[in-house]
Amino acid sequence: MSKLVLLVLCFSVFLINFRTTEARIRHYKWEVKYEFKSPDCYRKLVIAINGKTPGPTILAQQNDTIIVELKNSLLTENVAIHWHGIRQIGTPWFDGTEGVTQCPILPGETFKYQFVVDRPGTYLYHAHYGMQREAGLYGSIRVSVPDGVSEPFAYDYDRSIILNDWYHKSTYEQATGLSSIPFAWVGEPQSLLIQGKGKFDCASVTQPNVCNATNPECSFYTMTVIPGKTYRLRIASLTALSALSFQIEGHNMTVVEADGHYVEPFVVQNLFIYSGETYSVLVKTDQDPSRNYWATTNVVSRNATASAPPGLAILNYYPNHPKRSPPTTPPSGPFWDDVKPRFQQSLAIKSHRDFVHTIPQTPDRVIVLLNTQNEVDGRRRWSVNNVSYNIPHTPYLIALKQNKTHLFNQAPPPEGYDFVNYDIYKRQNNSNATSSDSIYRLKFNSTVDIILQNANTMVVNNSETHPWHLHGHDFWVLGYGEGKFDINNDPKKYNLVNPIMKNTVPLHPYGWTALRFIADNPGVWAFHCHIESHFYMGMGVVFEEGIEGVGKLPSSIMGCGKTKESHNP
Amino acid sequence: MSKLVLLVLCFSVFLINFRTTEARIRHYKWEVKYEFKSPDCYRKLVIAINGKTPGPTILAQQNDTIIVELKNSLLTENVAIHWHGIRQIGTPWFDGTEGVTQCPILPGETFKYQFVVDRPGTYLYHAHYGMQREAGLYGSIRVSVPDGVSEPFAYDYDRSIILNDWYHKSTYEQATGLSSIPFAWVGEPQSLLIQGKGKFDCASVTQPNVCNATNPECSFYTMTVIPGKTYRLRIASLTALSALSFQIEGHNMTVVEADGHYVEPFVVQNLFIYSGETYSVLVKTDQDPSRNYWATTNVVSRNATASAPPGLAILNYYPNHPKRSPPTTPPSGPFWDDVKPRFQQSLAIKSHRDFVHTIPQTPDRVIVLLNTQNEVDGRRRWSVNNVSYNIPHTPYLIALKQNKTHLFNQAPPPEGYDFVNYDIYKRQNNSNATSSDSIYRLKFNSTVDIILQNANTMVVNNSETHPWHLHGHDFWVLGYGEGKFDINNDPKKYNLVNPIMKNTVPLHPYGWTALRFIADNPGVWAFHCHIESHFYMGMGVVFEEGIEGVGKLPSSIMGCGKTKESHNP
Repeated sequence: MSKLVLLVLCFSVFLINFRTTEARIRHYKWEVKYEFKSPDCYRKLVIAINGKTPGPTILAQQNDTIIVELKNSLLTENVAIHWHGIRQIGTPWFDGTEGVTQCPILPGETFKYQFVVDRPGTYLYHAHYGMQREAGLYGSIRVSVPDGVSEPFAYDYDRSIILNDWYHKSTYEQATGLSSIPFAWVGEPQSLLIQGKGKFDCASVTQPNVCNATNPECSFYTMTVIPGKTYRLRIASLTALSALSFQIEGHNMTVVEADGHYVEPFVVQNLFIYSGETYSVLVKTDQDPSRNYWATTNVVSRNATASAPPGLAILNYYPNHPKRSPPTTPPSGPFWDDVKPRFQQSLAIKSHRDFVHTIPQTPDRVIVLLNTQNEVDGRRRWSVNNVSYNIPHTPYLIALKQNKTHLFNQAPPPEGYDFVNYDIYKRQNNSNATSSDSIYRLKFNSTVDIILQNANTMVVNNSETHPWHLHGHDFWVLGYGEGKFDINNDPKKYNLVNPIMKNTVPLHPYGWTALRFIADNPGVWAFHCHIESHFYMGMGVVFEEGIEGVGKLPSSIMGCGKTKESHNP
Repeated sequence: MSKLVLLVLCFSVFLINFRTTEARIRHYKWEVKYEFKSPDCYRKLVIAINGKTPGPTILAQQNDTIIVELKNSLLTENVAIHWHGIRQIGTPWFDGTEGVTQCPILPGETFKYQFVVDRPGTYLYHAHYGMQREAGLYGSIRVSVPDGVSEPFAYDYDRSIILNDWYHKSTYEQATGLSSIPFAWVGEPQSLLIQGKGKFDCASVTQPNVCNATNPECSFYTMTVIPGKTYRLRIASLTALSALSFQIEGHNMTVVEADGHYVEPFVVQNLFIYSGETYSVLVKTDQDPSRNYWATTNVVSRNATASAPPGLAILNYYPNHPKRSPPTTPPSGPFWDDVKPRFQQSLAIKSHRDFVHTIPQTPDRVIVLLNTQNEVDGRRRWSVNNVSYNIPHTPYLIALKQNKTHLFNQAPPPEGYDFVNYDIYKRQNNSNATSSDSIYRLKFNSTVDIILQNANTMVVNNSETHPWHLHGHDFWVLGYGEGKFDINNDPKKYNLVNPIMKNTVPLHPYGWTALRFIADNPGVWAFHCHIESHFYMGMGVVFEEGIEGVGKLPSSIMGCGKTKESHNP
């Protein structure tokens, strides 16, 4: 190659790079398929994207357009993918929530998701249909700031890790048990996965050719680092069930981002993280460089002795061999049943002082959501204000836009519960619970407060952690409290100065969590517990706002329920 | 109750019975759902109808209308049900063949099948989507003659039995292996089931709570009979893989019906039966009434020593205890590798002399279909004339009716193969094989001959038995032969006098089978090997005839592929 050609080529590359400051289209072609994988050494069917679980990471810059052409190559099973944390402004039909915003994608079909990533930050994608997320259909979205824009912290390298828990039973086996009479609980997960890798104890497996501890698929996840640098580590959780703590042996973590919003930095040794949350932490590789270190994750909130053992990964200080085990015992996490530090960490997360989004000082509407466990028609369910949520089979977005409001229950769901008499510390029968597909219809542009109120489950002396995730919006986190929310006094303690904005937030055992958002995104949006089995068992609600402002729906989201009946020529 | 009321009631019952001579509507409501069952003592997920596998038996009289409202309560999985042997005259959209005649039925939806059973006889229903039939979604249809019409044989009682083979792996695990590179064969079935019951050897299962030999679900199927009577036993096979022999210890069977057509009676000790076939046999309970007898089924054509052990049932002579084991060893069936008696039995099946359907003496078109195993794009497939069939995702019936012919390959598939040079006894690479969704378009009302030609598989010295099933028609069975079909001489040996009509027919190893049918049923019809994995791997073709005569398609069959695009308002 002549030097001239080389020069022209270099210049072209420069031009291409130069253009990256403008919004670009990021085009992905994904094939979703069942494959046999051994993420924790135990061989089972997973739903993979292009042969991988977790699927490919989407890398983009703010204001880029993401196009994912998703081919469903499952044999008889549909699919839908939610872009978790992306607000889908102007594209509510691409939120990927089966039954809410779209019909599922049938086998053999290719569905084109197209949306703008309008804010930098750390996001996720995952199946939002049945319990398919647990089958391995998930991945990361990393949106960087535009060229020339700086962030309120500095780092040398940027890495992503998704934490997950992992079951050996199929999602069908799990779901069949959950909806059986009598109820058959799926039980605790078998493993914790760090970026898709775990280690199950194969010695406990008697069947041949099912578990192989030397399978390279389940070698420890290794993050190789250069000593003396600062790493931005984007940590996300997509657990089916477990609340987690994450720690790196001998290294502090400075929390700088939560769910796409800059955090006023604070330092932790243990990062508590709940399903659906994302955090960026800064880690300095300032320890003895002659060895490697353990990174571990362990279950909190549920009895960790009964649940999956800690997940392990290796922080590999270059040039040590990446597979060289650290010379130490992996650090144990915090006590699983100590709820105090979890409350404290939730309270510690405030908006970065330079990035505070001004919050409306008063709400137009306050909805209190009591979280309970119930029996409805003999089946174990989760409920909100004694209503257990059922997903309809004609998506709301289509039904509402086409004025087919008879397709779901029009009676508004309750705005609260019996605040005076309900004892949240007592096991209750909640025998008047019902199931419904009714939704909350919000005044467009109104300010809505949501008070999540926890309570005792159907087991005496038990209250669980529920991470609630809102589609289509970020909300301000007004506060967390223990016990029963006091509508007269607790709002006085709200943080209206520098509340963090998030899309997922924990509701701690026997506690309350208060949120505020503006209903300014025309569409229909799910708000639900991000524990896969809890949402499957009815723990969610749906909000509609500004349906009249929703544009023409693409025909690709049609095809199910009553969306086909009027279309027959 | 007063005597008068009783009299009135009796008279009402009489009136209701009296009315059965007119065609009636038989209305069924079915819910299709995953449930844990132990048909052969081994606990696994099955697809049940109203909690049962096999599903409910449809009992009707000739010319009745069957309505099945099918609710899909699978979580993320679609479904479609084929009414096997019912020609669907005037209702080709209710044939239940996913991708050919309808879009699949989505979870949460209720689909209404409605069709007339226009001929008496023994028929079946089963899933026709992916490999769902193997998950347990099947049952019997028994259509009796109208009151006052007599059959050409007499019997005291009428009973149905479906034979099946049973896998412990899920259909997903099986299908994933079949479409993998390298190919992972599902292997032989674990059990043979008689009317949904089998006995797996639980001692070989190491996992706890999976196999329980004392589970009443897997007690022997017992048919209680009264000594000295004649039983019509309707025997059907819906095996995934296996060709079977069925026998009743010490009892002859007189074959009187095949696939809904009366047979010139002949007596067998072993009834050979292939997946998709139905037979009626008459059994006289003329043996020693002081004991019970074994009924057994065993694998033929495939190496029975490697396959599932024989399936057992009890013929219980009343008043012996139904669970009392016969004092004898269960009879062993014929040698699995002796193909001669199977050829002979096929040849023995002729139309009953009083029920011969006159056969056109010459065909308008002859299509020869060479059955081979191939590799296509590195995947193991089955092919016909070197074309491996792919199911499209917009059903042909809709695409053709709406003139969207661009939705599938318009090039006609080949009418034959290289008759002169192809050595059917040699393992061939068939490296020029392709896959396609092209179809045969038949002139309406024309007479079509199909010559099925068997050959060696990709394994040296191996040719398998393929039961071919035609939708929408019965065909005359012109003949069977060994070796390569001789187009000049073999047609001279056709039975044009009293050929049986059937909808499913075996193609024996290294042999040929010749069929004739009239393309007089407007619609689009699958013709395929009834072995579940073989059809999944491409062993089928599709015929179109008289599409212009097809009535208005119901909107309920829409919703997939390109059937939704034009319907968006």
